[in-house]
Amino acid sequence: MSKRKKKIALIIHSGTLDKLYCAFILGSTATSMDMEAHLYFTFWGLNALVKGGLEKARLPEDYKDMENQLKKKLREMNYPTPYDLLKRMKASGLLKIYACSPTMKMFGIKEEDLIPEVDAIAGAAAFLDVASDADITLLV
Amino acid sequence: MSKRKKKIALIIHSGTLDKLYCAFILGSTATSMDMEAHLYFTFWGLNALVKGGLEKARLPEDYKDMENQLKKKLREMNYPTPYDLLKRMKASGLLKIYACSPTMKMFGIKEEDLIPEVDAIAGAAAFLDVASDADITLLV
Amino acid sequence: MSKRKKKIALIIHSGTLDKLYCAFILGSTATSMDMEAHLYFTFWGLNALVKGGLEKARLPEDYKDMENQLKKKLREMNYPTPYDLLKRMKASGLLKIYACSPTMKMFGIKEEDLIPEVDAIAGAAAFLDVASDADITLLV
Repeated sequence: MSKRKKKIALIIHSGTLDKLYCAFILGSTATSMDMEAHLYFTFWGLNALVKGGLEKARLPEDYKDMENQLKKKLREMNYPTPYDLLKRMKASGLLKIYACSPTMKMFGIKEEDLIPEVDAIAGAAAFLDVASDADITLLV
Repeated sequence: MSKRKKKIALIIHSGTLDKLYCAFILGSTATSMDMEAHLYFTFWGLNALVKGGLEKARLPEDYKDMENQLKKKLREMNYPTPYDLLKRMKASGLLKIYACSPTMKMFGIKEEDLIPEVDAIAGAAAFLDVASDADITLLV
Repeated sequence: MSKRKKKIALIIHSGTLDKLYCAFILGSTATSMDMEAHLYFTFWGLNALVKGGLEKARLPEDYKDMENQLKKKLREMNYPTPYDLLKRMKASGLLKIYACSPTMKMFGIKEEDLIPEVDAIAGAAAFLDVASDADITLLV
């Protein structure tokens, strides 16, 4: 009989590079520990699921003068890009990605605009359902 | 014998329109699913509980150029305002709103300045008490 | 037989004064309630663990015009500084502070640059381990 896996549920409201890294590092570390990772993207975060969106993510205004230095350092460290981390999670079979349906309507984003890794287009109830049964819940 | 209800506990530190929508959409979806919602407003978030404060909430500086477009779209969608969502939660009988007492002192806000929907003026211990027994805890 | 203590796990991504206060007020209130507090500092938050860093923390750009007023008010209230709160937590014996190792590498921060209150330099897995067993998990 299979044991219930531990579960992390993240609601990703922010769309800045630092916050996306934060979410994806937590998520990919979780899946590497054999935990389920449920990532629900809403508001500014949803842009990360639009084709080409992850590549365009920037640091927030307060820190923008550090952007070039950070990107250079990450390249030197051979650090994976956010999309690399997303694909790594996906390959584990333990990741589920949700795109917030009201946000899509609000920003005029269509299903065909989203990257193929998205598992479901859903409202907040889907996130609450998963999160209420998770071991770790965080808003990023 | 009544079953224990599931519970969401949100600490609302941010006062921007996008974050308040995020908190109130999660909260009102939770109460519509028969979950208890406990919302503790602190720091910039407390302004949302001051009379007229919710109506004055704006997008953060990084996104302010999208404010008019967002507000126009929300009207077209007949989307409820944050205050509408708050009243909807309140009507469910499952919402409890806490105003952070040290923040009130810090910003010189008095009890009579707050909207009537506030249930309690309390310190962080009240939030931790509720949150340590909740199924979902998030900082907004 | 000693009862398991309740536990709060905070991941501190932000480095601004308002967010650090939020984290430290939650943490010190938790330890005063005999809960364990686990604080994992990453990204901008890591600066708070660099010697002299806590004292340099500022409000975010959106609120910087309120900084002088806030600091004046906190002095009038004899409100503890963030470092005071950190030392209070530490004195309880219930606080554990983690510095994110990849962030240290990214920003070129060395172990000797950190304040002596840091308990461990660790990756995200250490946080997930603690958080998956905590009663309250929040990202600040």
